Amino acid sequence: MVWNKFFNPRAVAVVGASDSEGKVGYSVLKNLIEYKHPRNIYPINPKSETVQGLKSYRSLLEAPDGIDLAIIIIPSQFILPVFEDCGKKAIQTIVVISAGFKETGIEGAKLEDDLVKKAKELGIRFIGPNCLGIIDTHSRLNASFSAGVPPAGNIAFFSQSGALCTAVLDWAMGEKIGFSKFISIGNKADVTEIDMLEMLKDDADSDVILGYIEGVTDGVKFMQKAKEVSQKKPLVILKAGSTASGAKAASSHTGTLAGSQKAFDAAFKQANIIKAESVEDLFDFALAFSYQPIPKGPHLTIITNAGGPGIMAADACEKSTLKMAKLSKKTVDKLRESLPPVAALYNPVDVIGDARADRYKNAIETVIEDKGVDGILVLLTPQEMTDVEDIARIIGDLSLRSNKPILASFLGENAVKKGIEILNEKRVPNYSFPEHAIRAFEAMVKYEQDIKRPSLRPKRFKVNKKKVKDVFDSVRKIGNFDIGESEAREIISAYGFSLPKSVLAETSEDAVSIANKIGYPVVLKVSSPDILHKSDVGGVKVGLQNDKEVRDAFQQIMINSKRFMPGSHINGIFVQEMARGGKEVILGVTRDPQFGPMIMFGLGGIYVEVLKDVSFRIAPICEHDARAMITEINSFPLLKGVRGEKAADIDAIKNSLLRLSQLVIDFSEIIEGDINPLLVKSKDEGAIAIDVRFTIKEE
Amino acid sequence: MVWNKFFNPRAVAVVGASDSEGKVGYSVLKNLIEYKHPRNIYPINPKSETVQGLKSYRSLLEAPDGIDLAIIIIPSQFILPVFEDCGKKAIQTIVVISAGFKETGIEGAKLEDDLVKKAKELGIRFIGPNCLGIIDTHSRLNASFSAGVPPAGNIAFFSQSGALCTAVLDWAMGEKIGFSKFISIGNKADVTEIDMLEMLKDDADSDVILGYIEGVTDGVKFMQKAKEVSQKKPLVILKAGSTASGAKAASSHTGTLAGSQKAFDAAFKQANIIKAESVEDLFDFALAFSYQPIPKGPHLTIITNAGGPGIMAADACEKSTLKMAKLSKKTVDKLRESLPPVAALYNPVDVIGDARADRYKNAIETVIEDKGVDGILVLLTPQEMTDVEDIARIIGDLSLRSNKPILASFLGENAVKKGIEILNEKRVPNYSFPEHAIRAFEAMVKYEQDIKRPSLRPKRFKVNKKKVKDVFDSVRKIGNFDIGESEAREIISAYGFSLPKSVLAETSEDAVSIANKIGYPVVLKVSSPDILHKSDVGGVKVGLQNDKEVRDAFQQIMINSKRFMPGSHINGIFVQEMARGGKEVILGVTRDPQFGPMIMFGLGGIYVEVLKDVSFRIAPICEHDARAMITEINSFPLLKGVRGEKAADIDAIKNSLLRLSQLVIDFSEIIEGDINPLLVKSKDEGAIAIDVRFTIKEE
Repeated sequence: MVWNKFFNPRAVAVVGASDSEGKVGYSVLKNLIEYKHPRNIYPINPKSETVQGLKSYRSLLEAPDGIDLAIIIIPSQFILPVFEDCGKKAIQTIVVISAGFKETGIEGAKLEDDLVKKAKELGIRFIGPNCLGIIDTHSRLNASFSAGVPPAGNIAFFSQSGALCTAVLDWAMGEKIGFSKFISIGNKADVTEIDMLEMLKDDADSDVILGYIEGVTDGVKFMQKAKEVSQKKPLVILKAGSTASGAKAASSHTGTLAGSQKAFDAAFKQANIIKAESVEDLFDFALAFSYQPIPKGPHLTIITNAGGPGIMAADACEKSTLKMAKLSKKTVDKLRESLPPVAALYNPVDVIGDARADRYKNAIETVIEDKGVDGILVLLTPQEMTDVEDIARIIGDLSLRSNKPILASFLGENAVKKGIEILNEKRVPNYSFPEHAIRAFEAMVKYEQDIKRPSLRPKRFKVNKKKVKDVFDSVRKIGNFDIGESEAREIISAYGFSLPKSVLAETSEDAVSIANKIGYPVVLKVSSPDILHKSDVGGVKVGLQNDKEVRDAFQQIMINSKRFMPGSHINGIFVQEMARGGKEVILGVTRDPQFGPMIMFGLGGIYVEVLKDVSFRIAPICEHDARAMITEINSFPLLKGVRGEKAADIDAIKNSLLRLSQLVIDFSEIIEGDINPLLVKSKDEGAIAIDVRFTIKEE
Repeated sequence: MVWNKFFNPRAVAVVGASDSEGKVGYSVLKNLIEYKHPRNIYPINPKSETVQGLKSYRSLLEAPDGIDLAIIIIPSQFILPVFEDCGKKAIQTIVVISAGFKETGIEGAKLEDDLVKKAKELGIRFIGPNCLGIIDTHSRLNASFSAGVPPAGNIAFFSQSGALCTAVLDWAMGEKIGFSKFISIGNKADVTEIDMLEMLKDDADSDVILGYIEGVTDGVKFMQKAKEVSQKKPLVILKAGSTASGAKAASSHTGTLAGSQKAFDAAFKQANIIKAESVEDLFDFALAFSYQPIPKGPHLTIITNAGGPGIMAADACEKSTLKMAKLSKKTVDKLRESLPPVAALYNPVDVIGDARADRYKNAIETVIEDKGVDGILVLLTPQEMTDVEDIARIIGDLSLRSNKPILASFLGENAVKKGIEILNEKRVPNYSFPEHAIRAFEAMVKYEQDIKRPSLRPKRFKVNKKKVKDVFDSVRKIGNFDIGESEAREIISAYGFSLPKSVLAETSEDAVSIANKIGYPVVLKVSSPDILHKSDVGGVKVGLQNDKEVRDAFQQIMINSKRFMPGSHINGIFVQEMARGGKEVILGVTRDPQFGPMIMFGLGGIYVEVLKDVSFRIAPICEHDARAMITEINSFPLLKGVRGEKAADIDAIKNSLLRLSQLVIDFSEIIEGDINPLLVKSKDEGAIAIDVRFTIKEE
């Protein structure tokens, strides 16, 4: 409803419409007029009777009623009163093109805040400020200062960068690629990227959504909305600023390894967003999704009239997650009948340099029938006999009749230009280089796999939430925000983690008798609220084998603790079961400023510290996420077991990740923490949390 | 001399010249005539008096003397006699365009062999067969059936794929990129890619060499020649077929991990070849090298009129090996003076959306003076005020005056087209997407670093070669081609490797007394030429701590060996020092069919088996190579020492690699082998080869 007023208004007012060429107020009005549509356009300009031949009004208040949309292009400091006029005229949708707001500093930010407040007060929604405007090719609205309009089509684009809008528009016009809507969201003071997702999800004109963002307004809502969109149509997003180092002084491993980019990557995965690494990806993916059906699987066949490019395309395919289709005997036999003897009948199918359209036709028709083929990439080099245009036409016609995707890569420039135009008309995406076609096909396959996976609710385990709350209350009371040892043990124990047996001993004879109950070997650890880094003061002794060693260790720890930390309060010494065997993994949690709690997984020790081989997801995570976190690390084979070892208890890791996720969702005071190591036993034998620490918020 | 006859012949004969449009013999003659040059062209055609208006000859023998080059386009079976005619006419340079040779099967291969033999006999050099022909834009020779000729320039291209030649030609013409020579080397029956390197190295018209290859004729010569070329001018090569799985049944770790692609990658690194991953890379790199000076360092500054693309370019820079230049205070102050207040003065420098040419000029002039800046990437999006052409002109003029490279990325299509043409005229490479510019800049920086590194001769250690020869002779005599244990120990010991102490014991009391001399703990291993896999038959016992354990182990090994391998000859049991501490690494050797012996390095155990984190170089390696092999693996930090550990003895690893390289160069009978593990102690403490095996050739 509100979106309809933005994108298909009955009447539009242009506040700041101008007769002076070169001014933005001139371009916007001109664009509105030239993109013909029977809607009323009212220039607002206090100084003229007419603007660009249209009757002009001194103010909005003097303009006729029934205006759905106001476009504002006057200097920033004069805009607030115009909002008030809009309120009086019952105009509730506005595009503020003018710059001079948050992007210029503190004063601008103040102006922007005022606009937002006023809009809230009057029930107004507005796009911008500091934007290029909006275009709808189906309702024929060009409320922007763009230098033209692309053909109508089914691709929508929203962008946080106006300049990028200009470049994408220019590309779309140059390549004659059809778009449905262009929305430059500018500073997104009111209408945000989340609104765009909401609107475009249900927009019947848009089958593919492209977005360029530099940040998100609300990470959780963004993910939720993006996930809904992805279920209906492909959502391709380019996130810039990926390597901006979040110079964050983190005290946990997880904190050190996390960062804004990790959070975005995780969020994109969980929301089934197709990630574009560059503007080029945006274009490449948009074409494939816009023009072709989604493949049912990853099996690609390459048809080429030249060996070299065929090999290169096959190389790119092998390096990707795609598979080169294995053609059936029937297909190969049929190809043999219709192709010359020197042709290559296996994938890549080489129809040979002198191939003309009929040979391409035979090859494509034969291959596309093969049940083992999910899609085709047709390569062409412009050789002596190559009838480029006829071949393009044949490919286009076959593509229109097929429910398997066909992509093309015509190599060259002038000699293939006309052919590429024909392909484009017939909605076959052409890529200047086969590698790009492969990458686009891969994006399609991945999208299909992502949305086919059923959506799971995060599992809720039965836990003792009250217990954890009590622990937090008590540590907070004594001003302890770095929680280690016994309190951290209590917390994760309440959330169902297994821990090594551990009993506090007050005397060395206590310790010996506890050790005998637990069973040797054991670990002794000093327990003191004043000693955080127990190892550093000689407060930990591991691998104690017998009574004598326990007795000696007890004395030594007492001596060390008193020597290094004189005056510290010592509760006693923990005698702990020494868990052995199994694989050490690390589970972590950190809090991202945009997406909130984030869970980390990796193999312990050097895998995390040196190789940084870890995975992240935004909490809460579901079982799919937990499994993906475990399998996507490079060292996953070590968990599956190498050299005849038994596999580790993957289910135990999965459940640990889910329990940790539940914990951080339940307690927003947790800022970061590690369970490091979690000792994972063999399959069905579980996992034990050996060491745990959390940092919580001070308030 | 011979090349001059190919590329600047006084007179050319076209054997198979034709008047029928559509025939290759028509196109070739037409191309020769149209690309005007005062050289004589003699069509040879037995059936006409004239061809395309030129007097024609019934055979070469009837044509005038003084022909330097013959182009042959007649069916393959008729070509041999033409070679004989060439011999009679003293024509010693030929281009065979005709197909129908090796590429078609056994009969064709036979015809090709005949041509090669005949050429050798007559002292003829020929390019092809099965090729597009050759083009020289400076001597104005188009001896090909190409559909046109690119502008003259300084880029040379040779290609094993004729179709790719066509596509690259079409691109060069479309984009108006200047080339010096195009050489389609076809089946390279006589003139090969190595000849091309030789010729282009000294070709004054060519400043950059591009090549497309699918394989090499002689790996060692190729590397040697490529290295010579790289010292003079950049050599960019695209090698296709990179993922073709060399389905090789290997018995060593090294053999399993090696493969044709690994060998090519290593050879490219060692020969300072710039590796193109795709045709796109070929184009992108060619432009940068052809148009711009090589940067002195990796510090790039981005100048942009739009924030978003600036961020994206910075992202790409951060992800690469390049560095974002840190602008000096002086530069920033000067930028502040000339740019508007909202401009971004740090890298990326944002001149803001309304920037016109003067502002770009100020920014570029200021930044380029900064000593901390090695090169500039100028971004442009076509906005309202952007005077694209003026900006292009300014960039071009500044670039012509500067000795630092300037690359550009004008985003869009129609709106930037004219600007890009101007950039091209002024030799500023433009890239449609900033990521490509970054990649090209990175290739330039890497090239500069590579060629600056002094070339070292492989170090020769003093070794006992005779000893190794004797070992090979003796094992060969008894038909033992898998060499393990004592013989392998002797081999590497003769090449200077340290080994754990090891003495053969014949009785258990012997073993005990040896163990006491070596020092506990020790390892016992059965010694028998019949038992290859000692562990499998219970022939190895490790970690023996005292006399009793040695005695028991001796008995047990004897029993095991006799039970599992009855009738095997047992020499006795080795008592070995049990080397401990240090890091386990693996050194390996394998033999590549194209490049010969190849050395591998990696960390032992799971790093090599699971993570496949290994490096390769072609032997012989120099000290640079050895060091690079060690530092380029991901797990290198583990050798440098993590968590306060001491660093491993990197020099010992380096010398071990060099010694192994010397060994495999000295003994070509070694097919593959591993030193696994080599136990590397702390810095200055050396390394010990714990286990060694080699496989040698049977003859």
